[in-house]
Amino acid sequence: MDAYRSQIRSFLVAALNEDIAHGDITTELTVPEEHVSEAAVIAKDDFVLAGLPFVREVFALVDARIGFVEAVSDGSPVLKGSVIATLKGSTRGLLAGERLALNILQRLSGIATLTSRFVELVSGTGACIVDTRKTTPNMRYLEKYAVRMGGGNNHRFGLYDGILIKDNHIKAAGGIRRAIERTRGKVHHLMKIEVEVSTIEELAEAIQAGADIIMLDNMPVEVMREAVATARTYSPTPLLEASGGVSIDNVREIALTGVDLISVGALTHSAPSVDISMKIV
Amino acid sequence: MDAYRSQIRSFLVAALNEDIAHGDITTELTVPEEHVSEAAVIAKDDFVLAGLPFVREVFALVDARIGFVEAVSDGSPVLKGSVIATLKGSTRGLLAGERLALNILQRLSGIATLTSRFVELVSGTGACIVDTRKTTPNMRYLEKYAVRMGGGNNHRFGLYDGILIKDNHIKAAGGIRRAIERTRGKVHHLMKIEVEVSTIEELAEAIQAGADIIMLDNMPVEVMREAVATARTYSPTPLLEASGGVSIDNVREIALTGVDLISVGALTHSAPSVDISMKIV
Amino acid sequence: MDAYRSQIRSFLVAALNEDIAHGDITTELTVPEEHVSEAAVIAKDDFVLAGLPFVREVFALVDARIGFVEAVSDGSPVLKGSVIATLKGSTRGLLAGERLALNILQRLSGIATLTSRFVELVSGTGACIVDTRKTTPNMRYLEKYAVRMGGGNNHRFGLYDGILIKDNHIKAAGGIRRAIERTRGKVHHLMKIEVEVSTIEELAEAIQAGADIIMLDNMPVEVMREAVATARTYSPTPLLEASGGVSIDNVREIALTGVDLISVGALTHSAPSVDISMKIV
Amino acid sequence: MDAYRSQIRSFLVAALNEDIAHGDITTELTVPEEHVSEAAVIAKDDFVLAGLPFVREVFALVDARIGFVEAVSDGSPVLKGSVIATLKGSTRGLLAGERLALNILQRLSGIATLTSRFVELVSGTGACIVDTRKTTPNMRYLEKYAVRMGGGNNHRFGLYDGILIKDNHIKAAGGIRRAIERTRGKVHHLMKIEVEVSTIEELAEAIQAGADIIMLDNMPVEVMREAVATARTYSPTPLLEASGGVSIDNVREIALTGVDLISVGALTHSAPSVDISMKIV
Amino acid sequence: MDAYRSQIRSFLVAALNEDIAHGDITTELTVPEEHVSEAAVIAKDDFVLAGLPFVREVFALVDARIGFVEAVSDGSPVLKGSVIATLKGSTRGLLAGERLALNILQRLSGIATLTSRFVELVSGTGACIVDTRKTTPNMRYLEKYAVRMGGGNNHRFGLYDGILIKDNHIKAAGGIRRAIERTRGKVHHLMKIEVEVSTIEELAEAIQAGADIIMLDNMPVEVMREAVATARTYSPTPLLEASGGVSIDNVREIALTGVDLISVGALTHSAPSVDISMKIV
Amino acid sequence: MDAYRSQIRSFLVAALNEDIAHGDITTELTVPEEHVSEAAVIAKDDFVLAGLPFVREVFALVDARIGFVEAVSDGSPVLKGSVIATLKGSTRGLLAGERLALNILQRLSGIATLTSRFVELVSGTGACIVDTRKTTPNMRYLEKYAVRMGGGNNHRFGLYDGILIKDNHIKAAGGIRRAIERTRGKVHHLMKIEVEVSTIEELAEAIQAGADIIMLDNMPVEVMREAVATARTYSPTPLLEASGGVSIDNVREIALTGVDLISVGALTHSAPSVDISMKIV
Repeated sequence: MDAYRSQIRSFLVAALNEDIAHGDITTELTVPEEHVSEAAVIAKDDFVLAGLPFVREVFALVDARIGFVEAVSDGSPVLKGSVIATLKGSTRGLLAGERLALNILQRLSGIATLTSRFVELVSGTGACIVDTRKTTPNMRYLEKYAVRMGGGNNHRFGLYDGILIKDNHIKAAGGIRRAIERTRGKVHHLMKIEVEVSTIEELAEAIQAGADIIMLDNMPVEVMREAVATARTYSPTPLLEASGGVSIDNVREIALTGVDLISVGALTHSAPSVDISMKIV
Repeated sequence: MDAYRSQIRSFLVAALNEDIAHGDITTELTVPEEHVSEAAVIAKDDFVLAGLPFVREVFALVDARIGFVEAVSDGSPVLKGSVIATLKGSTRGLLAGERLALNILQRLSGIATLTSRFVELVSGTGACIVDTRKTTPNMRYLEKYAVRMGGGNNHRFGLYDGILIKDNHIKAAGGIRRAIERTRGKVHHLMKIEVEVSTIEELAEAIQAGADIIMLDNMPVEVMREAVATARTYSPTPLLEASGGVSIDNVREIALTGVDLISVGALTHSAPSVDISMKIV
Repeated sequence: MDAYRSQIRSFLVAALNEDIAHGDITTELTVPEEHVSEAAVIAKDDFVLAGLPFVREVFALVDARIGFVEAVSDGSPVLKGSVIATLKGSTRGLLAGERLALNILQRLSGIATLTSRFVELVSGTGACIVDTRKTTPNMRYLEKYAVRMGGGNNHRFGLYDGILIKDNHIKAAGGIRRAIERTRGKVHHLMKIEVEVSTIEELAEAIQAGADIIMLDNMPVEVMREAVATARTYSPTPLLEASGGVSIDNVREIALTGVDLISVGALTHSAPSVDISMKIV
Repeated sequence: MDAYRSQIRSFLVAALNEDIAHGDITTELTVPEEHVSEAAVIAKDDFVLAGLPFVREVFALVDARIGFVEAVSDGSPVLKGSVIATLKGSTRGLLAGERLALNILQRLSGIATLTSRFVELVSGTGACIVDTRKTTPNMRYLEKYAVRMGGGNNHRFGLYDGILIKDNHIKAAGGIRRAIERTRGKVHHLMKIEVEVSTIEELAEAIQAGADIIMLDNMPVEVMREAVATARTYSPTPLLEASGGVSIDNVREIALTGVDLISVGALTHSAPSVDISMKIV
Repeated sequence: MDAYRSQIRSFLVAALNEDIAHGDITTELTVPEEHVSEAAVIAKDDFVLAGLPFVREVFALVDARIGFVEAVSDGSPVLKGSVIATLKGSTRGLLAGERLALNILQRLSGIATLTSRFVELVSGTGACIVDTRKTTPNMRYLEKYAVRMGGGNNHRFGLYDGILIKDNHIKAAGGIRRAIERTRGKVHHLMKIEVEVSTIEELAEAIQAGADIIMLDNMPVEVMREAVATARTYSPTPLLEASGGVSIDNVREIALTGVDLISVGALTHSAPSVDISMKIV
Repeated sequence: MDAYRSQIRSFLVAALNEDIAHGDITTELTVPEEHVSEAAVIAKDDFVLAGLPFVREVFALVDARIGFVEAVSDGSPVLKGSVIATLKGSTRGLLAGERLALNILQRLSGIATLTSRFVELVSGTGACIVDTRKTTPNMRYLEKYAVRMGGGNNHRFGLYDGILIKDNHIKAAGGIRRAIERTRGKVHHLMKIEVEVSTIEELAEAIQAGADIIMLDNMPVEVMREAVATARTYSPTPLLEASGGVSIDNVREIALTGVDLISVGALTHSAPSVDISMKIV
C-alpha cells in the first residue's frame, strides 16, 4: 500500500472534508476536547472483511494519537457479533472519523463478500473470477483491492495498462484484423492484446490475426463451449474470458465451459454493503 | 448545480485520470484521431433516471466539441430499450468518457430507483423518506441529488450543517439534558436540535430539555407508536424521525405509526446499479 | 480545531509560499543554517488575544522542531508589554514564520478586541452580538473563531448551512409568503428559516407564513421597538435580529429595543489590527 | 493581470467554495433556475475604487454568461450613490457571487482610499508612500494592487524578491558590516541591498559597508533629519526609507525630513472597508 | 493527446507560475497592455521537431486569444533558419509564454533528434530503439512522446504498466524461477513478463520458467550473440532486449546480434537541447 | 532548503506518482512486504555531486523509516567507484524510490559538473559564471541549486524577481531610453535595471538613461572588449554581462575581455547526466 499512499491519503482527506467541512458542530458543543474513549468496530453480519488498513489511515489522519488494534485481517471471514478492531483516543477524533471509516469498511467488505461467493461457485473448474472497470469513480484502487481480498483477480486497472480491443474499436479500425495489426508493435512489448468477439467466426479471425486473449462477449453458454473447442485447435492457445450477464445463478455453468476467466461487473457496481458498527465502550 | 460546479469538475477530472492516466492506449492505436461517431445512451432496465447533467459534464471535460442531447430528464421513469441521450463527436472522446459516464449514471439511477420504491410505499402516510450520511466517500453531493430525483428528501449534508445529538454525545456530555443545554445558544440561531433516543423516557427527557426533533433509534414499531402519542402531548410537537433497520418490507408499517421522517441508509449504501449502455451507431 | 486542520494547514502553507516562494534570500545569506535563537511574541497594545493556535501551526509547518510555549490563552485580555508566547529553535525558521504569524495574530486579535467592545456595550440587555459573511476571502473560519474569542456568537458559516431569505429572494419568488412556502419542507428538517423584512407589515406577513427568525433590516430604532412588540403578540415568538448600520455608538440603544441578536459586519471587515511584535532575545 | 490569472482564479474559486460549499440553499429553493436580473454595484461612501477586475472574474467563475459592464475604472475617486458597475444574467449566479465580490471590492477600495490619503499628505515633498508585508495571508497580490490604485508604490513582494537586512539578521551575522558582506556577490546582480538601522552610527556603518538603501527604523523625526543630512555626505547617496509608527498625523512631518520612501503597514493591515452594495433592479 | 490534457495543463500552469509568480515585472512596466505583435518560432539548428502541440497549449493558457499557426509537424526534420510556427496577439502574452515554450520545444526536439540518430543507425537490422524510465521527473509523458516523434518506441510508462523482474527482485524472491512463479497468474492477464539476466545460464532458466521477454543486462556483444542463438532454440522464442552501455558508437553492432529491442537511457537523460528562438517581427 | 520544502515535496510526490501510479506491480509480486535491504548509491563517473538532500527527501516520502547516511556532501568532487550514500530499510521502499532518486541525482550532478568546468576555465579573470531561465519546466529551483553547487552564481529566478529589458521590450516601449524611463521608480526600490544591447551605441544610450547593468547580447569578442572600455568611462560603472553563444571553447576568451558576468544556458539545458547507480548489498 506504500506506493499509492499519498493518493489514498488525499482521497481520505477529501472525504473527511466532505463530511466535516468547517466542523463537527454537534461534537464540538457536546463532547469536551479532552474526553477520551475506547471503541470497538463490530460485525453485525457474517462477511469477508476488506478495508481495515484504510480505516487505520482514516483515524491516523483525524488524530495521529488514536490507538488502533486490528483483531482480524483483511480477507478473513468474520462472524456476526465479532470485534474487528479496537480504538482508543480522543472521543472527538473517534466520532469525526467514524462515519467515513464505516462507509469504507462496509462497502469494501460488501465487495469482498460478493466476490468470495462467485469464487466459491467456480471452485475446481480452473476459471478465475475477475473484476471490471465498473467501479465507483475515484475508488477503483480500493475496490480492486477488495476484489482480491475476496479471492478474485484483477483485470486491467484502467485504459492505460492493458490493450482490450472492443466492438467500437473494431468498427473504427475497419475490422478485427486491421485493429489488431494497428496495435502490434506499437504498444510496448510487455503487453498482450485482448480482443472482444461475439461469434465463432470473429473468434477465428482474432486468433489468426494474433490476439493473445479473446473476450467472449455475451455469448450463450453453448456457443461459449464451441468457442473453447475452437480455441484449443490453435497453438499457442489464447486465453478465453467470458463477459456479460454473469450472475450467481449462471457462473458455475459458464465456468464449466472451460473458459479461463469470468469477468463480473456486479462485484463492484452492485455489491450491497455489509453491516458494521462502531461502539464507544 | 452552478455553485458546486468547480468541485464536481475536479471530482470528474480525477475520475477520468483514474481511468485514463497516461492514455487510452487501445483507442489511440485503433481509432484514427479524426474519426467521428454518433452514440446513444440506452436503458437496459426499467428505472428512474438520475445523473444526466454529470454525464454532460464528463463529455464536456473530455472534449468540449462533443454534442450532447438529453432525451429524458432526471427524475423521470425510463423504460428498458429507450434512448436516454444522444452524442455526436470525436470517437476517441466518446470512448474516453464512456465508462465514467455510465458508472455515474448507473449508480445514481440505481439510487433514484430504490428511493422511488420507498417513496411509493409510504405514499399517503405523510411520512418523508430521507437519506443518511452512509454515502460513497466523495460522492455525497451526487448521491443526495439522486435521492431527490427519486422523490426522497435530504437529511443534513454532513456534520457541519445540522445538530444531531447521538448516544455517544449524550454519554460524553453526561446525559440528554446536559447535552442539549451545552448546544443551546452556542450553535447559530438558524439551526434546530435533533436528539437520538431509544426509549419513551429518553423521548420525554429530550422534549422537555427543548429538542426540536427526536430520532427514534431502532425502536420496535409498537414503541414507535407510543412515541408518536407521547410526542403529541407536547406543544410545540417535535418532529419524529424513525431510523435503523428500515427496509422495503417494513417501511409502510413504520410510516403508519405517524412518524414524520424515515431515514434509510440503504438508499445510498446498497442500491444496485441499473443497466445502461452506450452504443456507437 | 482538529477536524478542519487539513484545510487550515493548506491555507497556511499557501500563505508561507506567498511570502517566501523560492526562498528567504536575506536570511539564507546572513543567518547560518545552524544558528538558533529564542524569541518572544510581545503585545504592544492592550487587546483581547485570538489566533495563538494558528501561530503554533505556522511554526510547526516551517520547522517541526521549533519549541512553542503559550503564555496566555486565546480569549484573554492582554496588556501592552506582556509576553504572549515564547519560541526556541532555528533562527532561519523563526524568521521565515514571523511575518505570517504576526499578520494572523494581529488581525484576529483585532477582531476579538472589537467584538469584545460590542459585547460589553450590550451587557445585561439579553442581546447577542453576531458576525456576518463580510469576512476576508478564505479566512472565514479563522475570523469567526476570533469573533467567538471576543465573546460574540457566530451567524451561519456560509450560504450552505442556514436559510436566510433576503429581499432579492423575495422579489424573485414573488413575495414573502411564497418565498417561505417554497422553502418549507424542502430544506432539511434541522434548519430554521430566517426572513429579512424592513417594515412592520412585512414582519407580520413573515411571521404568519411561518418564519422562525426575522431579520430587521436597517430599521430605525423606534420601528425596531415596534417590531419587538409586534413579534411578541405571536406564539411561538420568533427571534429578532437587528442588522445594518450598527456601530459602537448605537449598539446599546439597539440592544435595549429587546431584539435577540445584533449582527455587525464591522467585526470582521473593519477591525484595525492590534500591534504585536516578535523579538529575538 | 494575465500572468497571475491562474493563481487568482484558484484563490477566488476557493473563496466561492468557502461561502457556498454544497450549495446556496436559500437561493436554490426560492429563486427559479431560469430567473434573470439586472444588478448595479453602488457606492455608499466616497472612496477610491480598487478591485473591479477581480469582481469581473468572480462572476465569470460563477456563471460565464453573466454580463458585466464597468462604469468606473480602478484608481478613480467614486462618489456616494454612484454606480460602479452593472450586471445582467442569472439571478442565482448574481446572488452566488455577490458577497465575495463585495467583500473584495470593499476591502481593496478601503486600502486604495487610505493609501490615497497618505499620498495626498506627502504631495510635493518628493517622498513615496510604500506598503509592507503586513498584508492579509494569501491576498498580498490583490492588496498590493490596491495600494498602487491608491497612488502608492509597492515595496518588495515577499522575502524572495528583495534583500532587506533587519536587526535579527545583523545579530545572527555578527554586525552590520558582516551581514552586508555575506550578501554581496551572492545575491543575484539585479538586486540592491537594504539595511535597517536605528542610529546615526549604524547608518554610517551600513553606508560604508555598501548598502544601497537604508531603512530608518522607528527614528524620531529630528534623528531622521540628521540621517538625511548624513546620507547626503556620501556618494552615491543611498535611498532612505522611514519605517515604523507612521500615521496620518505624522506622515507629512516625516516626508519633510527629506526621506525618499515612507512605508506604512496600516495601508493593508488596518484600512477599514468602504461601503458598497449590489442592488437587483 | 486529449485524454491526458488536464494533467499536461496542470504541468504547464505550474511551470508558468514557476517563471512568472506574481508578475513579469519588466514587461508590465515597458510593454503597454494593448500592444500586439506577430512572432515567429525559428530553428537555429537542423533537428527533428517535437513538442509543438505543447507550445500551442502554453500560449492558449497564457492568453486564449493568441493565434498560433504551425508551419511544420512534430516528427519532421527541420532545417536551420526555417520557421516552425507563427503567432499573433498580445505582446505581453507572447513574452510571458516565450521562455516556457522554447524550453519545452528545445528539450523535446533534442530528444527526438537524438532518437532519430539511433533509429537510423539500426535501420535494416530489425531492432527497435526503445526508451527507459530515465526521464526528467514529471515530464515522462512529454519525453516519451518525443522519443516516438524521433522514430523510437516506448518501453513501459512506469512501474505500474509492465512487469520487469530485475536483479534486486530476483535476489529478494530467491532466484529467477521463484520470482517468475510469484508473478504468474497474479498480474493481470494482459501483461507479459520480462526478466533481466546477465549470463547464458540465467537466460535459460528464465525462458524455462516462462519469461516472455528477456533483458540482456550489460552483456558483451559476443555473449549477446550467443544469447540470441540460445533463445532461438526455444519455442515460442522470447523477445530479447539489449540494455546498458548503448551508445551511438556501438548501437549498430548490438543491433546486428539479432536482438529485438535496444533500450537507450541517453535518449532522455542526456540529449542536448537544440537551438530555437522566438522573434517578434 | 527549509522554506521551499512544501513545494519540493509536492514536486517529488507528483514524480513518484508519475512512476508508480497504482503500484509497483513487479515489486509487489516478487518482494515480500517485510523484506529489508541495505543499499549503496555509487558513482560510476567522476563528477561534482549535487542533489543529495532531495534524494533523502525522496526516500523519506516513500517510507519514513528508511535510514539514509550521506558519505559525501553536495558540491564535492566524487571519484568513479566511490560510495555517495548508504540506505537501509524496506526493500520495497528502496526499489520504489530508486529511479526518481537517481534521475534527480544524475541530472543535478551533471549540471554541477558542467558548471564547475566553466568556473575553472574563467578562474582568475574576475568573471562570474551565471545561469539562465533555460531550465527544465518545474525544476528551476533544483537546477539553480545545482549551478551553485558547481561554483556558479544564479541569475534572477524568474520574470518576477529582476528587471531585464530585452530587445522586444525596447521595441514595444519605443526605444532604450523610454523603456528605462518607464521602469524607473515604478519597480520597487530594491531592484536594479538590466538592459540588453547589441552595439556600442545602444550601450551608451542605456548607460546614459540610467541602466545599472548591461547585457551584451551575442557580441563578437572584440566588440565586447570595446564595450568594457566604453563602460569604464562612466561613473558609476555599470556591470557588464556577456550572453549568447558561450561555450567551453570560448568562455575564457570572453572572460578575459573584462566582463563581470557570463551567462550560460547550456549549464541547465544541455548538461549530460552523470552515471550513478544504486546497489542492494
